[in-house]
Amino acid sequence: MHAIGVDIGGTKIAAGVVDDEGRILAKTRRDTDPDDVASIDAAIADVYRELTADFEVREVGLAAAGFVAADRSGVLFAPNIAWRDYPLRDKVAALIDAPDVRIVVENDANAAGWAEFRYGVGRDAQDMVLLTLGTGLGGAVVTNGRLVRGAWGVAAEIGHMRVVPGGHYCGCGHQGCWEQYVSGSALVRDAQAAAISQPARAQHLLDLAGGTSAGITGPMVTAAAQAGDALAVDLLTGLATWVGEGAATVAALLDPELFVLGGGVSAAGDLLLGPARQAFAEQLSGRGHRPEASIVIAAMGNDAGMVGAADLARVLD
Amino acid sequence: MHAIGVDIGGTKIAAGVVDDEGRILAKTRRDTDPDDVASIDAAIADVYRELTADFEVREVGLAAAGFVAADRSGVLFAPNIAWRDYPLRDKVAALIDAPDVRIVVENDANAAGWAEFRYGVGRDAQDMVLLTLGTGLGGAVVTNGRLVRGAWGVAAEIGHMRVVPGGHYCGCGHQGCWEQYVSGSALVRDAQAAAISQPARAQHLLDLAGGTSAGITGPMVTAAAQAGDALAVDLLTGLATWVGEGAATVAALLDPELFVLGGGVSAAGDLLLGPARQAFAEQLSGRGHRPEASIVIAAMGNDAGMVGAADLARVLD
Amino acid sequence: MHAIGVDIGGTKIAAGVVDDEGRILAKTRRDTDPDDVASIDAAIADVYRELTADFEVREVGLAAAGFVAADRSGVLFAPNIAWRDYPLRDKVAALIDAPDVRIVVENDANAAGWAEFRYGVGRDAQDMVLLTLGTGLGGAVVTNGRLVRGAWGVAAEIGHMRVVPGGHYCGCGHQGCWEQYVSGSALVRDAQAAAISQPARAQHLLDLAGGTSAGITGPMVTAAAQAGDALAVDLLTGLATWVGEGAATVAALLDPELFVLGGGVSAAGDLLLGPARQAFAEQLSGRGHRPEASIVIAAMGNDAGMVGAADLARVLD
Amino acid sequence: MHAIGVDIGGTKIAAGVVDDEGRILAKTRRDTDPDDVASIDAAIADVYRELTADFEVREVGLAAAGFVAADRSGVLFAPNIAWRDYPLRDKVAALIDAPDVRIVVENDANAAGWAEFRYGVGRDAQDMVLLTLGTGLGGAVVTNGRLVRGAWGVAAEIGHMRVVPGGHYCGCGHQGCWEQYVSGSALVRDAQAAAISQPARAQHLLDLAGGTSAGITGPMVTAAAQAGDALAVDLLTGLATWVGEGAATVAALLDPELFVLGGGVSAAGDLLLGPARQAFAEQLSGRGHRPEASIVIAAMGNDAGMVGAADLARVLD
Repeated sequence: MHAIGVDIGGTKIAAGVVDDEGRILAKTRRDTDPDDVASIDAAIADVYRELTADFEVREVGLAAAGFVAADRSGVLFAPNIAWRDYPLRDKVAALIDAPDVRIVVENDANAAGWAEFRYGVGRDAQDMVLLTLGTGLGGAVVTNGRLVRGAWGVAAEIGHMRVVPGGHYCGCGHQGCWEQYVSGSALVRDAQAAAISQPARAQHLLDLAGGTSAGITGPMVTAAAQAGDALAVDLLTGLATWVGEGAATVAALLDPELFVLGGGVSAAGDLLLGPARQAFAEQLSGRGHRPEASIVIAAMGNDAGMVGAADLARVLD
Repeated sequence: MHAIGVDIGGTKIAAGVVDDEGRILAKTRRDTDPDDVASIDAAIADVYRELTADFEVREVGLAAAGFVAADRSGVLFAPNIAWRDYPLRDKVAALIDAPDVRIVVENDANAAGWAEFRYGVGRDAQDMVLLTLGTGLGGAVVTNGRLVRGAWGVAAEIGHMRVVPGGHYCGCGHQGCWEQYVSGSALVRDAQAAAISQPARAQHLLDLAGGTSAGITGPMVTAAAQAGDALAVDLLTGLATWVGEGAATVAALLDPELFVLGGGVSAAGDLLLGPARQAFAEQLSGRGHRPEASIVIAAMGNDAGMVGAADLARVLD
Repeated sequence: MHAIGVDIGGTKIAAGVVDDEGRILAKTRRDTDPDDVASIDAAIADVYRELTADFEVREVGLAAAGFVAADRSGVLFAPNIAWRDYPLRDKVAALIDAPDVRIVVENDANAAGWAEFRYGVGRDAQDMVLLTLGTGLGGAVVTNGRLVRGAWGVAAEIGHMRVVPGGHYCGCGHQGCWEQYVSGSALVRDAQAAAISQPARAQHLLDLAGGTSAGITGPMVTAAAQAGDALAVDLLTGLATWVGEGAATVAALLDPELFVLGGGVSAAGDLLLGPARQAFAEQLSGRGHRPEASIVIAAMGNDAGMVGAADLARVLD
Repeated sequence: MHAIGVDIGGTKIAAGVVDDEGRILAKTRRDTDPDDVASIDAAIADVYRELTADFEVREVGLAAAGFVAADRSGVLFAPNIAWRDYPLRDKVAALIDAPDVRIVVENDANAAGWAEFRYGVGRDAQDMVLLTLGTGLGGAVVTNGRLVRGAWGVAAEIGHMRVVPGGHYCGCGHQGCWEQYVSGSALVRDAQAAAISQPARAQHLLDLAGGTSAGITGPMVTAAAQAGDALAVDLLTGLATWVGEGAATVAALLDPELFVLGGGVSAAGDLLLGPARQAFAEQLSGRGHRPEASIVIAAMGNDAGMVGAADLARVLD
């Protein structure tokens, strides 16, 4: 049967009809205002009506960036949308008035991880971890073939595992969170710092950035690295080493067979995978007495949240 | 139905008949030689015969300290017993010759964690983490009500999560493993170091130890702390702070509702729980937007491995 | 004989006539523009003329915030004034046209440290370290009774000793610099972070700050701590612990008899000294086999730079 | 004029007549018992008599491994010889009975550093730091052309600067001391750890060591690295990186023009210098606005302590 998946971002929503093979049969989108939560409800109802004009659906999965209630009914807190203990499921249900349609709310990173697990690079795995290297570091955890939401729905806040006591400040109010070493923001900050501490080596990056360190972006670093710039390669290698070392810590706890790297930074591909795999192997506990997990790039791209949300809406758990 | 659980230690095995409420109906034990693996097989068969003289059983669960194969058939590697890719299940099966009895091998910390989850302090939880603070730091992970064994059976090597880059050397060949900060060995080493760097404050501990730092043991530190010795309290507080901070990292990944502290160090009780809970709360990401997991002392004591192994032998997964 | 000391800040200069007992006989000041270096030269000449109307002087010492040339002739680089390889001595000499008057340029923190060493809390010491806890962390080093300027004049950049590998980002382009743990900026940042991670405990600080974490200042934290606020006390204790632990590292290298704490944060007084001394003692290598250095608050206040610059102008080295 | 320098080791003393150009005119030695301090006094008197048979001397400098009193009269504490508050100068003076001969006691690392400063690679420098990479990490500090002994004679305990909070345990009772990352012991321990965590890569080292990780020595690692073994090169590079990064911290404080590497590990030569220089440059604060200190290998070899002790006996300070 078909289900609708809706990926709710800060300023737009993307929705699609997804079949039970994970294929997207139709897609649509709307712009939204993150400060006007009622308008987001309305936009969801609107895309629901548009898509159900042509398709029959039984479930609607809503992927939201934030802390999602364990019963999948709403959002406890969102950093970029004005949701605070917001009953998103019931708000949307009231608007679409289709009592037989099940609506569930899922964390967006969980939804993306689930899509990779079911239809992407993880489809043969039972234990998998997604690391989404975007502005921050998010992710999803699957053990025993099931998504790990945790006791209160906020599992897989992977980016806030502490990797350095007394380390970089994090927006969460703590220090040394993994996402401060493994994210697009970390890459940019490290590149800008290198432009100060090693100006000569940073010349190529500075040229790309119009001459000022403040202009350096993550894609510039990746492009420079792909063009062979030594500093940019070092910066990505440094980030990838933190990916691998942190993954080894996760592996000590969960022993997954697969780590999947998604998010914008994963566009660096092999520049990331090579040193991440090496660091993982060198840091893995019990190496030689156990197989080593694979580290691969995600396959589902920007549709992962939509597909995963639709699919999770079918799962009764 | 009844099942037999066998807890296989370095120099002895303890076995018991366990009913489906987790009660031990009968117990027995044998001394064993860790270098003679065949003698361990024989001892297991022997306790099986003894216990089945009075009880009918359908399953035998063997709890072993080591890396256990994902199919629960044997031990890949054990640090203290001469098992290397050892087919323990089939070896024992050949000796007891009871084709209808299911035999499974489980990691001992997993078994203990499962016992707490099913019959101990975790019986109302769905997501729980056991931390066993013994010589090292072991544990068990339960998510969605199921034990997490990982893709290759070696999940929950919790003690080898890295908490300090460049930190204390660990016997595993790496540095900064959590067990080097949270274990009986860590407690002793820190106490001995304090006897060097702060000799005056360590006088009470040195007195207990017969005058030399080398004589200080973990129970001495606990006893001194319970008697109010300031250094001993500081040492346990330091260890407990690492418990809480590491638990916060685990919570970022798994969001369990419960952390259970077992092992010899947990005898310190409230001296451990107080600062562990405080450090956990202070380090928890998203605090204020989520409930906080409980941290409690394990309830099952030394029988946990036996009970958990017996119970896991009934679970088909 | 008398000397003039000039303390050159970002937006003003303060000058005074200093006798050979370190007493200030007259004082004056001018506003200046940090982007117009010639105007600073002119202002210096102007205060020189004003002060020499009433006093005869043989030396002029100019205290400048920046990297000062080893021959004391100018400024290599300044973070807040537009000096780049600037021959400050000769520029001023050309304006005042007094060939017999010796003019020297000194780093402002070195000048302040020298004043404490000669006339303040360090007047009985031969080996002393000043730590200036202001926006950043600066300082001065005296060994064998002489100021340590280093081979190229840039010694005592104390705030950039690395205390945490992979630690907080620093404006210098590196990570984990001491000043990111021990400075007014660090105090404010930690307070603001606590307002996020521990909002309930931060209520008093938030009240002082008008309700937003962004409004919290260093003096607010000190005031709150002095009023007994638990979080504020914890924040100052944390900062002071880093003072003491870092000082223990300095002591391993230099074994001074005295650490002097200056700068705005030192207004916290005993709230700082207590935990700093304790952390220093606990972290000091070879404790019990050596005396322990004193840690005290600076005595000379804002005049230290002026007095020290004047006095250093008399020293031929 | 000539002076005698005596280098007092754990099991032998080496003595020589040194002229005022730092040349050794005659040498002799005796075996000694570290537990019998009177026998060491006697051995010193004995070599004094032997050497003064042919040479007239005015000073005797005694280089001792330990905390030396600030007035250079004795040893406060020694780790490997049974000196505790031992008046070595007066004990020796009583035996040789030559009232006109000045006897001074110096720390052995200080003596070696002074020899390099006066007659070795530092002879053109005014500000220099010696790092002695032996079993531990010792050293010497020269600022403004004078040896830094500190207020109580125990400066330059460089190996106990803390470089990693919560880092490797040190024999001093603290954690994260620099010598646990930069010394022969550290090299051996890291090699042995790698043999556990990366057994395949460690095969060459294990072959050299007779098959067991416990047999690996520092010179084996150096030899393997010089033969191109990748792991050995990595191990030395890792150690050298810590040399450079720690040196950058020292440079922030002292701005020396020269770091001199001595001790057994320095035999690795360019394998050490290359990555040490790179790490130093990358970690140096204010790079681009200041010259960079040189890092070189010591030139004086095992005679440095003897020569430096003799020469320091001539210096009245």
